[in-house]
Amino acid sequence: MTSNSAPSPFARLSLNSATTKKLTLAEVVDGCVRAGIPAIAPWRDRVEEAGLDKAAKLIKDAGLRVSSLCRGGFLTAADAEGQAAALADNRAAVLEAAALDTRELFLVVGGLAPGEKDVVAARQRVADRLADLVPFASENGIRLVLEPLHPMYAADRAVISTLGQALDLAAPFDAQAAGVAVDTFHVWWDPELKAQIERAGRERRIASYQVCDFNMPIAADPLLSRGFMGDGVIDFATISTWVRDAGYAGDIEVEIFNQEIWDADGDVVMETVKARYAELVLPYA
Amino acid sequence: MTSNSAPSPFARLSLNSATTKKLTLAEVVDGCVRAGIPAIAPWRDRVEEAGLDKAAKLIKDAGLRVSSLCRGGFLTAADAEGQAAALADNRAAVLEAAALDTRELFLVVGGLAPGEKDVVAARQRVADRLADLVPFASENGIRLVLEPLHPMYAADRAVISTLGQALDLAAPFDAQAAGVAVDTFHVWWDPELKAQIERAGRERRIASYQVCDFNMPIAADPLLSRGFMGDGVIDFATISTWVRDAGYAGDIEVEIFNQEIWDADGDVVMETVKARYAELVLPYA
Repeated sequence: MTSNSAPSPFARLSLNSATTKKLTLAEVVDGCVRAGIPAIAPWRDRVEEAGLDKAAKLIKDAGLRVSSLCRGGFLTAADAEGQAAALADNRAAVLEAAALDTRELFLVVGGLAPGEKDVVAARQRVADRLADLVPFASENGIRLVLEPLHPMYAADRAVISTLGQALDLAAPFDAQAAGVAVDTFHVWWDPELKAQIERAGRERRIASYQVCDFNMPIAADPLLSRGFMGDGVIDFATISTWVRDAGYAGDIEVEIFNQEIWDADGDVVMETVKARYAELVLPYA
Repeated sequence: MTSNSAPSPFARLSLNSATTKKLTLAEVVDGCVRAGIPAIAPWRDRVEEAGLDKAAKLIKDAGLRVSSLCRGGFLTAADAEGQAAALADNRAAVLEAAALDTRELFLVVGGLAPGEKDVVAARQRVADRLADLVPFASENGIRLVLEPLHPMYAADRAVISTLGQALDLAAPFDAQAAGVAVDTFHVWWDPELKAQIERAGRERRIASYQVCDFNMPIAADPLLSRGFMGDGVIDFATISTWVRDAGYAGDIEVEIFNQEIWDADGDVVMETVKARYAELVLPYA
């Protein structure tokens, strides 16, 4: 059987709901359907607003895939109470991911504890909490996705700063239980990036490829310095080629935190995402 | 012979002139003498204002050492004209360092060329320019000091982002010709830091240890997020111990870019530097 229509160039494109932060989940889903974007990566707050069961049905009825759920994590509490709360929250996130019919749960692992300066100890606590969580996640068919964040967030958001470090932390676990994310914004600067993407491919741990640009100068709120592909300094051709050559053929998520984009019309944002993806990412991915 | 007086606890302390940005070189020198800080690391703009010969005499007559000259670098121009200009400027910096009687010339190697997105190519140009410069520097008794900068400056200030990468770039040259700097602000987050400091020690390339803190939240101008030791998130005990155990026994520079500190009285700043150094760095260094 052959189809009369060519496959969509956007078959692997997924919109992360943070890119259209002001839209409800229903609005994001409708927008993706209108735009021909076949997958979404919802954040948990949008899912919670809609209600988990309704959110799952909404997405499924619209014919969209869920490429990942964003996010669990914040595993670095130093006290027993904080650790128990983090584990409970992450177990809930695992169940939400399963209900949404995705395999991939992103973890932003957390920074230093309040007042703490011992980043080595904080990293060890991440390793310990992963060991606590992986069995539960695996039983529920969910892979925990370790996301290295740009080192400017090491103190307050993630003590995992490089892809190599994420792979080291994932190493004790089965590749189907613990993966890594390659987010261009966070890793483009890393002199080890090519080698570590190759390693991630060999170890079959690439769970997600996320694309957005690194805008310069850095925004006054450094969380919001992400931009549409093409607006910043990142070489998407090179990194996309490395990810492709490492064997990754899964969804490609666009996740942009940017006040100007948040303030823009959602449909316009999605069309820009598609255009930049088609021009700068797809030919190499 | 024994001395009646114990050695000064500040015998290894050096004030980088950027910490007291508003002071002239003469004012910094006077302040260091008053404060009992035995060494300074002048920036080239302060030296130029004073005049090179006068600056050298001023520092020498005050009995101060010059721990390093800040800075050469910006070696990533992609065009022949830009490269020639960078080489000329760096050769001038080498001669200035020699005239100031220091062995160590810091290099902030530069970011992407205007409009460029190929960080791999920019790194190669750094390697190429180093090969151009090292012979001239060595002939003049100067070591080129590669400073890895925090990855948030990779696009616009330095495509060297980790100590390991700096050591790789220095590797083709003699350890007395090409060294590396360990600046806590830039490298504290690096999961490879301990291993790479050990390596830098083994390879005898630690040319400078610079201390200042990483303030959170990051300042709106990310260049100015440096702070007095103790004001941010850095574990000076651990990193200082690693640097000491790697065999480094040279000067320890305090270099802080911070608007509030620049606006404060220079003598007060120097006393704060001394107090924080004595409390947080010296016991471990």
